Amino acid sequence: MHAAKAEPLTPIPYQAVTLSDSFWSARAATNREVTLPVELKNLRDTGRLDVWKMEWRPGMPNTPHPFWDSDLAKWIEAAAYSLATHPNPELEREIDRAVTRMEKAQLDDGYLNSYYQLVEPGKRWTNLALMHELYCAGHLIEAAVAYASATGKKRFLDVMRRYAQHIAGTFGRGVGQRRGYPGHEEIELALVKLYRATGERQYLDLAAYFIDERGVEPHYFIQEALERGESLPFSEEYFQAHQPVREQREAVGHAVRALYLYSGMADVAAETGDSTLLDACRRLWTSLTERRMYITGGIGSTASNEGFTSDYHLPNEAAYAETCASIALVFFAHRMLAIDPQGKYGDAMERALYNGVLSGVSLDGKRFFYVNPLAVRPNEERHGGEFGTVSRQEWFGCACCPPNVARLLASLGQYFYGVRPGACFIHLYGQSEARFDMEGVPVVVKQRTQYPWDGRIRVSVEPDATCAFTLALRIPGWCRNASVKVNGRTEALADLMKNGYAHITRTWNKRDVLELELPMPVERMRAHPRVRHDMGRIALQRGPIVYCLEEADNGANLDRIVLPRSAPIRTMQKRILGGIVALKTEGWEIPEKGWKEGLYTSSEPLRRPCHVVAIPYALWDNRKPGEMQVWIREE
Amino acid sequence: MHAAKAEPLTPIPYQAVTLSDSFWSARAATNREVTLPVELKNLRDTGRLDVWKMEWRPGMPNTPHPFWDSDLAKWIEAAAYSLATHPNPELEREIDRAVTRMEKAQLDDGYLNSYYQLVEPGKRWTNLALMHELYCAGHLIEAAVAYASATGKKRFLDVMRRYAQHIAGTFGRGVGQRRGYPGHEEIELALVKLYRATGERQYLDLAAYFIDERGVEPHYFIQEALERGESLPFSEEYFQAHQPVREQREAVGHAVRALYLYSGMADVAAETGDSTLLDACRRLWTSLTERRMYITGGIGSTASNEGFTSDYHLPNEAAYAETCASIALVFFAHRMLAIDPQGKYGDAMERALYNGVLSGVSLDGKRFFYVNPLAVRPNEERHGGEFGTVSRQEWFGCACCPPNVARLLASLGQYFYGVRPGACFIHLYGQSEARFDMEGVPVVVKQRTQYPWDGRIRVSVEPDATCAFTLALRIPGWCRNASVKVNGRTEALADLMKNGYAHITRTWNKRDVLELELPMPVERMRAHPRVRHDMGRIALQRGPIVYCLEEADNGANLDRIVLPRSAPIRTMQKRILGGIVALKTEGWEIPEKGWKEGLYTSSEPLRRPCHVVAIPYALWDNRKPGEMQVWIREE
Repeated sequence: MHAAKAEPLTPIPYQAVTLSDSFWSARAATNREVTLPVELKNLRDTGRLDVWKMEWRPGMPNTPHPFWDSDLAKWIEAAAYSLATHPNPELEREIDRAVTRMEKAQLDDGYLNSYYQLVEPGKRWTNLALMHELYCAGHLIEAAVAYASATGKKRFLDVMRRYAQHIAGTFGRGVGQRRGYPGHEEIELALVKLYRATGERQYLDLAAYFIDERGVEPHYFIQEALERGESLPFSEEYFQAHQPVREQREAVGHAVRALYLYSGMADVAAETGDSTLLDACRRLWTSLTERRMYITGGIGSTASNEGFTSDYHLPNEAAYAETCASIALVFFAHRMLAIDPQGKYGDAMERALYNGVLSGVSLDGKRFFYVNPLAVRPNEERHGGEFGTVSRQEWFGCACCPPNVARLLASLGQYFYGVRPGACFIHLYGQSEARFDMEGVPVVVKQRTQYPWDGRIRVSVEPDATCAFTLALRIPGWCRNASVKVNGRTEALADLMKNGYAHITRTWNKRDVLELELPMPVERMRAHPRVRHDMGRIALQRGPIVYCLEEADNGANLDRIVLPRSAPIRTMQKRILGGIVALKTEGWEIPEKGWKEGLYTSSEPLRRPCHVVAIPYALWDNRKPGEMQVWIREE
Repeated sequence: MHAAKAEPLTPIPYQAVTLSDSFWSARAATNREVTLPVELKNLRDTGRLDVWKMEWRPGMPNTPHPFWDSDLAKWIEAAAYSLATHPNPELEREIDRAVTRMEKAQLDDGYLNSYYQLVEPGKRWTNLALMHELYCAGHLIEAAVAYASATGKKRFLDVMRRYAQHIAGTFGRGVGQRRGYPGHEEIELALVKLYRATGERQYLDLAAYFIDERGVEPHYFIQEALERGESLPFSEEYFQAHQPVREQREAVGHAVRALYLYSGMADVAAETGDSTLLDACRRLWTSLTERRMYITGGIGSTASNEGFTSDYHLPNEAAYAETCASIALVFFAHRMLAIDPQGKYGDAMERALYNGVLSGVSLDGKRFFYVNPLAVRPNEERHGGEFGTVSRQEWFGCACCPPNVARLLASLGQYFYGVRPGACFIHLYGQSEARFDMEGVPVVVKQRTQYPWDGRIRVSVEPDATCAFTLALRIPGWCRNASVKVNGRTEALADLMKNGYAHITRTWNKRDVLELELPMPVERMRAHPRVRHDMGRIALQRGPIVYCLEEADNGANLDRIVLPRSAPIRTMQKRILGGIVALKTEGWEIPEKGWKEGLYTSSEPLRRPCHVVAIPYALWDNRKPGEMQVWIREE
């Protein structure tokens, strides 16, 4: 447990980080000004907000759904983050109104679930595997913690403490308790947040119980199903409940479930120093990121379980890559980074944020992807089940992704910096300002940069008083020739490197300036030879950004295009899509027009040169609908 | 209607064609000696044979299935063909026993269907769209015609005439008749066979009625479903009933349904000279073979409708390419060839026979493919629904394919030659002897050849008396430099060519010999640029045979292999798989062992040369199970 020896990093909270870059700030503003109101309207229109009036009765339309509480909870959490940085009395009143209703709806014993209270009273806790009761509780807890932190108001938190208290009494190994655990993980990480917010150890213990009990025989989900006279409709792997978590070596099953579990495991390990749990997290990380992750940071290769399949099975059109799963990957990566600051965690976090997470929301903030495939052919059969759309949608019946992306964007600042005694880590780059105390001395760290479009970052360190500490700069895995200057003097970077971070230890003065240079040539990325769907293909990446071809720029039938190995790829500032660096090159195409052969021919087809334009993957489907693909044929 | 002006070809019947080649004869012998007994056992074990005892009663196990009659019928048809060439009293007794039972089971009004008589009495003709009643009738009629022709026994034929009489009374535009037509086409072509066997015009008229009525508004299937209080669970395209057949321009829906319909349309057009119907056949042929057919002659791109999707959508792993559909393509091609002998029909027939049909049965004759994908990855999620197996199976719940391939192999000789006054056409090559009369003169045509492994064919023409006629030799579309000698003298082939056949007109003497040379270099086949799944890939073809890579020869992860454009491909006689010409070449591979990069890398991976061996596609999965792929990466 070598890493747990060092004190974990504490993220500099989003309230203390001001982003002023052109990339994320604009998206965060849209999130605040467009997405939050749009989502509130959708929540209201679909009954998710007003369900808390508790007026629904059997026979009335719009039956409450088991997921609804979580959708509203994630929106409240997002709105809370927004309130902290951008006060909005109307928004705050809306939340207070919802909290008042929940408070009123809460049963005397603390129980609080709109679906079970209205639709299936008396059936509570009878179907943990499938019915999302503890999942909803988890999201409500997260929302309450966020709202308390943002506004200082404790009422929502108190409601959720009572509910958590009830859950802690219900589940456990004591006499009369149920030995259950959630079918959809989430409450584990929420309970750790509640513990951190309240200092009450019982919540951490309950999180640890849920994690420890998972996958133990006799199998709770199977017994529970038997008691209902049913059988479990999914494999135990689907729930990551096929074996105790410490024995798990592969990322399996439903991807969001898996990543929320792993995040909770990392949280508990960070708090308890449990090395066996941390070892499991590390093994699962390796399985996940070295064998089961798309280049976009998407995870989940199939719609059938919304999750993982087998090593290196990463089909592009059929990718599920749920927005929520990439968000959960950010959560897990961020937690591992805090426990053990290693570049690989930061690399995956950055990969997911700039690509597979951000693709989940349109530039205008009004439409959302649930499924994020790496190639789309609008005229072919759909993959990804009901959520596999070829354009972003305004809402979904199962609306987990839209408020999830909203809460991420509203709290994005917290992923940039982490501190511990004697050190400040910069995980992500982007024009910003972070405020923290280093052993009593207030410090401001500022980044001036055009990142992610340019790799030059000027970091100024401004302590209130001279102050000795280590500034650790993540040198991204995609960067091959980084360099750093301290006050104009080039440092020997190799000597500074430790686990993917350049550690610069000195006594900092107000005028100290670091110049970090992360050259970002366009890279032709290739996949491991067992990723058969990507063989003979490259993906274009520049800095953290993975590119794609869109029909809007390149015409239809994108697979007709092949890039020669020798073709230089140029960058191009473009004002489209909010201002991007696009990529431009010359490829070859087999033109369809003029094709004189039949369906199959032994002649070698004529080729002609063609212009090829690539745009950031995350920004696709913001123009006219059409084909898209990440992996491009290469010769 | 230019083609209908010439008299259609009459196929030389299978009884008058003796195959003595090493390729088909061996398969036909296995079919006779192994497949027919194995299938009989399966039919018996699964209840399909004994259902005709009519002893099943509700509550008993093994409920008769709506398809069962057709499975037994196709087996009887296959067995009948076999009896004609290889008498087998035991087999004949088995069929007679079944016929006796059917005769006894037949209702007074002629109706005969084991499922409706036993399981849903009173419900007959209430669900034409889905319940296969007329389809079963069609297969029973085909079996009866075959059995009468093979044995001279008329009893089965009489049973089926009574049933056909009943159907003719039930369906039509007359007062009190139902304006229905089959949900699964088949009876149309069967009725034309019955007409040809009996000379009774009413059967041809009934076939024409079913074809003409199809897709007419108000829509019979929709009305019929409404009457049952249901709605139609498939689109009208699924049944080729979305518009009248003469308006149809694209091959759509369930592929076996479609091709049985088109075959019936061609039959009716051939008999009636109906040019509008023939034009529709020609348009559908073009749609089918120029935009919707696999290189193997497989058709049907998806399991979801067991059929067609859109133009050029030909995914390889997800291919459905049902064995029955390729067999039906042979039927349709053979009928078009008779009406209008053009090389393109013969090319498709040959392509399907040597590849997508033959793949349907194992070399040992005991196991069958229902679905014939062009790439298989045993460890990935299955395509092709319940029938998409990665190895051939002994039987299927829906067992249409095994007896279908059996009846084709038992009557294969009929596809080789066709005659009309003044001309004999050779459609297919293979060592064989065909007997026919040319304007009163008995003629024997013999082929001596190692085809399909070698392209030299020596054709001797042996008329009983000198006789003037045209011998038309198909010059396959795959062949670029054919040549022909008549009695040792090279002919100017171009002058002889007409619609893909070399027409050699002379007064034939007993010692006349033609030497046809069809050079068959290995061809690198490429697909139309809109077949996106094949872009950057080649298929290897030599003569009529499409090749594939198998894991048994090339190791796993076949997509790691790339063939350089310049690599010579050698042929190699091999004793495996019944004796084949295998292909051998040198490719490049990205070896998995020694891979030091992560899941994604900007380094260009190392490559090393590797041996590549290809075997005929139809013969895959006759060794140890593993991966297979037809389309190979090329650079």
